[in-house]
Amino acid sequence: MAIGQGRIDPATIVAVIGKTHGNGLVNDYTRGYLTLCLSTLIGERTGRSPEQVREAVPFIFSGGTEGVLSPHYTVFTVVEDAAALDGGKALAIGVAFTQAMRPSNVGRQAQIDAIAEAVKQAMARARIEEAHFVQVKGPAFTLAEILADQREGRFALTDNPGKLMGFGRAASALGVAKALGEIPADKAVESAVLRDFSLYSSVASMSAGVEVKVNEVIVVGMSRAWSGPLAIDHATMTDALDIGAIHAMIRRLGFPAAPQIAEPARVKAAFVKCEAPRDGMVRGRPHTMLNDGDINEQRHIRGAVGAIAASILNDTALFVSGGAEHQGPDGGGMIAVIAERAAPRA
Amino acid sequence: MAIGQGRIDPATIVAVIGKTHGNGLVNDYTRGYLTLCLSTLIGERTGRSPEQVREAVPFIFSGGTEGVLSPHYTVFTVVEDAAALDGGKALAIGVAFTQAMRPSNVGRQAQIDAIAEAVKQAMARARIEEAHFVQVKGPAFTLAEILADQREGRFALTDNPGKLMGFGRAASALGVAKALGEIPADKAVESAVLRDFSLYSSVASMSAGVEVKVNEVIVVGMSRAWSGPLAIDHATMTDALDIGAIHAMIRRLGFPAAPQIAEPARVKAAFVKCEAPRDGMVRGRPHTMLNDGDINEQRHIRGAVGAIAASILNDTALFVSGGAEHQGPDGGGMIAVIAERAAPRA
Amino acid sequence: MAIGQGRIDPATIVAVIGKTHGNGLVNDYTRGYLTLCLSTLIGERTGRSPEQVREAVPFIFSGGTEGVLSPHYTVFTVVEDAAALDGGKALAIGVAFTQAMRPSNVGRQAQIDAIAEAVKQAMARARIEEAHFVQVKGPAFTLAEILADQREGRFALTDNPGKLMGFGRAASALGVAKALGEIPADKAVESAVLRDFSLYSSVASMSAGVEVKVNEVIVVGMSRAWSGPLAIDHATMTDALDIGAIHAMIRRLGFPAAPQIAEPARVKAAFVKCEAPRDGMVRGRPHTMLNDGDINEQRHIRGAVGAIAASILNDTALFVSGGAEHQGPDGGGMIAVIAERAAPRA
Amino acid sequence: MAIGQGRIDPATIVAVIGKTHGNGLVNDYTRGYLTLCLSTLIGERTGRSPEQVREAVPFIFSGGTEGVLSPHYTVFTVVEDAAALDGGKALAIGVAFTQAMRPSNVGRQAQIDAIAEAVKQAMARARIEEAHFVQVKGPAFTLAEILADQREGRFALTDNPGKLMGFGRAASALGVAKALGEIPADKAVESAVLRDFSLYSSVASMSAGVEVKVNEVIVVGMSRAWSGPLAIDHATMTDALDIGAIHAMIRRLGFPAAPQIAEPARVKAAFVKCEAPRDGMVRGRPHTMLNDGDINEQRHIRGAVGAIAASILNDTALFVSGGAEHQGPDGGGMIAVIAERAAPRA
Repeated sequence: MAIGQGRIDPATIVAVIGKTHGNGLVNDYTRGYLTLCLSTLIGERTGRSPEQVREAVPFIFSGGTEGVLSPHYTVFTVVEDAAALDGGKALAIGVAFTQAMRPSNVGRQAQIDAIAEAVKQAMARARIEEAHFVQVKGPAFTLAEILADQREGRFALTDNPGKLMGFGRAASALGVAKALGEIPADKAVESAVLRDFSLYSSVASMSAGVEVKVNEVIVVGMSRAWSGPLAIDHATMTDALDIGAIHAMIRRLGFPAAPQIAEPARVKAAFVKCEAPRDGMVRGRPHTMLNDGDINEQRHIRGAVGAIAASILNDTALFVSGGAEHQGPDGGGMIAVIAERAAPRA
Repeated sequence: MAIGQGRIDPATIVAVIGKTHGNGLVNDYTRGYLTLCLSTLIGERTGRSPEQVREAVPFIFSGGTEGVLSPHYTVFTVVEDAAALDGGKALAIGVAFTQAMRPSNVGRQAQIDAIAEAVKQAMARARIEEAHFVQVKGPAFTLAEILADQREGRFALTDNPGKLMGFGRAASALGVAKALGEIPADKAVESAVLRDFSLYSSVASMSAGVEVKVNEVIVVGMSRAWSGPLAIDHATMTDALDIGAIHAMIRRLGFPAAPQIAEPARVKAAFVKCEAPRDGMVRGRPHTMLNDGDINEQRHIRGAVGAIAASILNDTALFVSGGAEHQGPDGGGMIAVIAERAAPRA
Repeated sequence: MAIGQGRIDPATIVAVIGKTHGNGLVNDYTRGYLTLCLSTLIGERTGRSPEQVREAVPFIFSGGTEGVLSPHYTVFTVVEDAAALDGGKALAIGVAFTQAMRPSNVGRQAQIDAIAEAVKQAMARARIEEAHFVQVKGPAFTLAEILADQREGRFALTDNPGKLMGFGRAASALGVAKALGEIPADKAVESAVLRDFSLYSSVASMSAGVEVKVNEVIVVGMSRAWSGPLAIDHATMTDALDIGAIHAMIRRLGFPAAPQIAEPARVKAAFVKCEAPRDGMVRGRPHTMLNDGDINEQRHIRGAVGAIAASILNDTALFVSGGAEHQGPDGGGMIAVIAERAAPRA
Repeated sequence: MAIGQGRIDPATIVAVIGKTHGNGLVNDYTRGYLTLCLSTLIGERTGRSPEQVREAVPFIFSGGTEGVLSPHYTVFTVVEDAAALDGGKALAIGVAFTQAMRPSNVGRQAQIDAIAEAVKQAMARARIEEAHFVQVKGPAFTLAEILADQREGRFALTDNPGKLMGFGRAASALGVAKALGEIPADKAVESAVLRDFSLYSSVASMSAGVEVKVNEVIVVGMSRAWSGPLAIDHATMTDALDIGAIHAMIRRLGFPAAPQIAEPARVKAAFVKCEAPRDGMVRGRPHTMLNDGDINEQRHIRGAVGAIAASILNDTALFVSGGAEHQGPDGGGMIAVIAERAAPRA
């Protein structure tokens, strides 16, 4: 619609990140559906095939808008304008892709290294000085694909499709941590995947879906080589109720202290990772998310942490994604917010 | 456990309110299970049969602890101590029961009037001057019970068990509003049930379950005829994100201004009602709770608003209940908190 | 794939009917996704836009392959060959579309009449003498669409999206019954919709989805104006366990008497409608499908009746669809099977 | 009710097996609820405490009556009557219990051996010559219990509660197979648990629930030391659609050949184990049970195989239980039926 109205020039789109109506689990096809629709639309306007658009632009969709959350997507566009540079830092974005992967690659050192390489590439291309949010969309596989790989002698870490998604998110997060120096870069950490949760990235947000075969990497940060009215910052949430971290971050972005942001229009996008604590407890009391046979744990925690963030940011169009393995501390997660600066940069 | 250790004298128990592990919908049997267990336990310690205990003590359990919420129950005990009265107001509690009801009574004027009568009775008995929280647990019926009633010529408002629960909660809330003067007491309002949502009670919290046949009414408020270290207050939430109302209430209860309560031990109990907005929108953006075929809308909204309240109160053992028909404004709800006073009363 | 390999000439496709991976409820987007994919593919091969393909070819997808059922679709192709006519009856198919509809049209006489007209049109065009299966895919609407219509003064029968799907299926079935003389054609039957279940069609199979705005009608039957090795027959199931009706039908189609078909390759397609009995009973015993807060009743009954049909037909690629309002007797449903004849026609 | 009416003498009850209204997964409390209710009732009538009743009588409840299945329970009563013996075989039942277990015992050789011992004990006591159905109810543990065990240095095979239930069912089934000579008795088979599915018992039916800590074992078979009008037989289903096995078994029990039993009153109880095939396929076509994020695979397969069995037995009050690890061949399961003989024994 924004394209039809001329508000967005489709040729300037570099990435799209959003939440779709599906359940966000293995059998969620809304991610692929929206990718197909948008890549077809952008292709028509820019004279490319949908496939060409998808090879150039990462479309990162996560399903599941539980509770008050609202389906939406954020379109990142970039226009060159050297004259606007003023020596200060501004929002910057870089993208990169890895090679296609098979089920048997997921969760292994090869994936960690490929992600680390792609993160560095995206940052270098975009001259990003501080990375505040690294989104990776990696491949998920159905049982049929896992078994097909197995028949050719390549064994995935598990034949449980949902669990393999977890391995993939975990390894990708460690790849981001490696690229950013959050963990030692010189040794293999495959053995830490889903085991040593003291290793994590504080800016990584991983998701996985059956609609991609490569890993798509988007790095959003701050750079002196970019200009514009926007800034990004991030915070590490130590647990699901850690709203102190969110409040500190939005104050760093220039919002006045208040339980709830009064100018929601200044919030341009927010990204949250969260997970149900593996020890079954939130602040000393038992939760039931891991025992529930009817609602998946990710749907539980997205609804909960998403609502908390929405209540502070005064906005429900948040990218909230579950499965925060190695993305923030164990049982916690991360939040990153892109906002308009309160006043012109000095 | 508290009884076994002598910390609670079972003879002093006047009401129990809590959240159980079930789904909180029609086919939730955990409410009845816990009622049976506790009434048997209390009966053994006080020389009564479980049935006698259940006739004297309302056990109000609501199922569904989505997201960060924690199953728990709050035991209300009362000890006579005229010497402690100091002329100030203190937490007071009163209980009453209506007659047993059939499916065909639910949602009708008879239920409204019976509830109003019971609320007045409970307040009079306990000399409550300000009512801040009125909890009613009314009967829910399975399809088999609805059809049995129908076969005897008594037609319920609907033969959909989940929908009939909604009629019951709605009529009961109007009964509370009638008793408290929140709506005109002199006319029939049956026609407003689930139609005119401008009529509501700001302190009512209704739930329904297949394990009761009568309506159990608990009124919690403040009274000069009572003493003790506790106080209660309540707030009306205009929508799911109305955290301003919560912050104002906890300041009235003496907590310092802060995004999150630092002394959670002072919070003794909290009760929240909420619902998915019928117009499909939260603060101008669409939500998906009413279109979701896999997760019931009540499970969605409890998880969301429960998490928001938990993030402020720094406590996950909250009584959060969905289905807020006529309990607070349309699309919003209510919250009531029992807390220890910060300092001795002057 | 079949198209790429030259096994199917895309220009000969007249209809596609299938089951997709989604939940089959309001928030199922897999129906639209597959429609987009297939119409794009067929359009590319036949020099038409996807929109043109969708206007000419009904794509009728139903979500939900519970239990042993398998996602699949059946492609109907037609080739003219006057020389093949031999005076006997053969499988014939006709299609037609109604005008686009709004939420407020659904379930009303206008929909009944439009469907009846389209059924007659489809039969006349294809010279069908006996109709054995009439599939209609009608529009479903999200809450947002229902409310948008309401704001313009047009009130739908309900603002509950799932329930409105039920009204649509019911009215469409009565439209089919009207066209085929199964109910009186000369009077309005709007008042019978979801009320008088003694009125029904024994060959109707209705589904609804958010991805269409018109009603798409496919009639499959037998005609002397057609030739080929295939035949269709149908049966009315009086309840979910009525396997006698299925066995009688497959014997009419020339299969030998046996609990399970030994030549499943002869079964080319099967279509089943079913529903959870409204009185809560199956053959005198209570079922729990209408009390379950976690699994929708349609997902329950599709999984059950689908498995029963699969166990007899020795095939899991069945089109099983829930919500059988006025499609077969109350609490029952219908089944239609397309099969290869056992031996050449005499 | 049957007890109140004098139809059942509560002192003669030796075991109760049934299906309850819950979801049949970890967070299903209906099993414990019904156990408490029935043990309290029987205790009152027989002058024992509920605990004493539960120590003497196994109550084996499985949750989940998906689709057409009906909640019910079967009460086994035994009366001594030496005069009735006629040298022929009749239905016989024996019970035994193992010691209590911790999470860390589940799925290990200790559980296998304890079960094998209990099966032998139950058969010896009841002088059972042919075992046709061995039901074991073993303990399930919540996350909190697993972690508590872990803190004391005892590590369970997994900290995923649902998965641990699977290990428990698997080990118990191998214990039954060991006792009955279906697998070699002289070597440890712990390493085969959930790995080597060629090892299985053809009469084992395992379930697990949080409401028990010991393993309760019931063996039902035929014995010359017993008399009465009932007989039991069983069949191995090679996959979910293997109705040939069911038909052969009911013919052995004396029912005439027909797609559906015409005298359902003769069927006294039926027990079915089934599972979603791990390779994602049923008879060459993909199923979606293992990819579904909204409905647990066990709920899918119980609804499907339960409906198939119900359609043949003409009865929906079947004990159908998912999770058939090592209980019948991989992807298949078992069925056992207790029926009244057609005519008096010669």
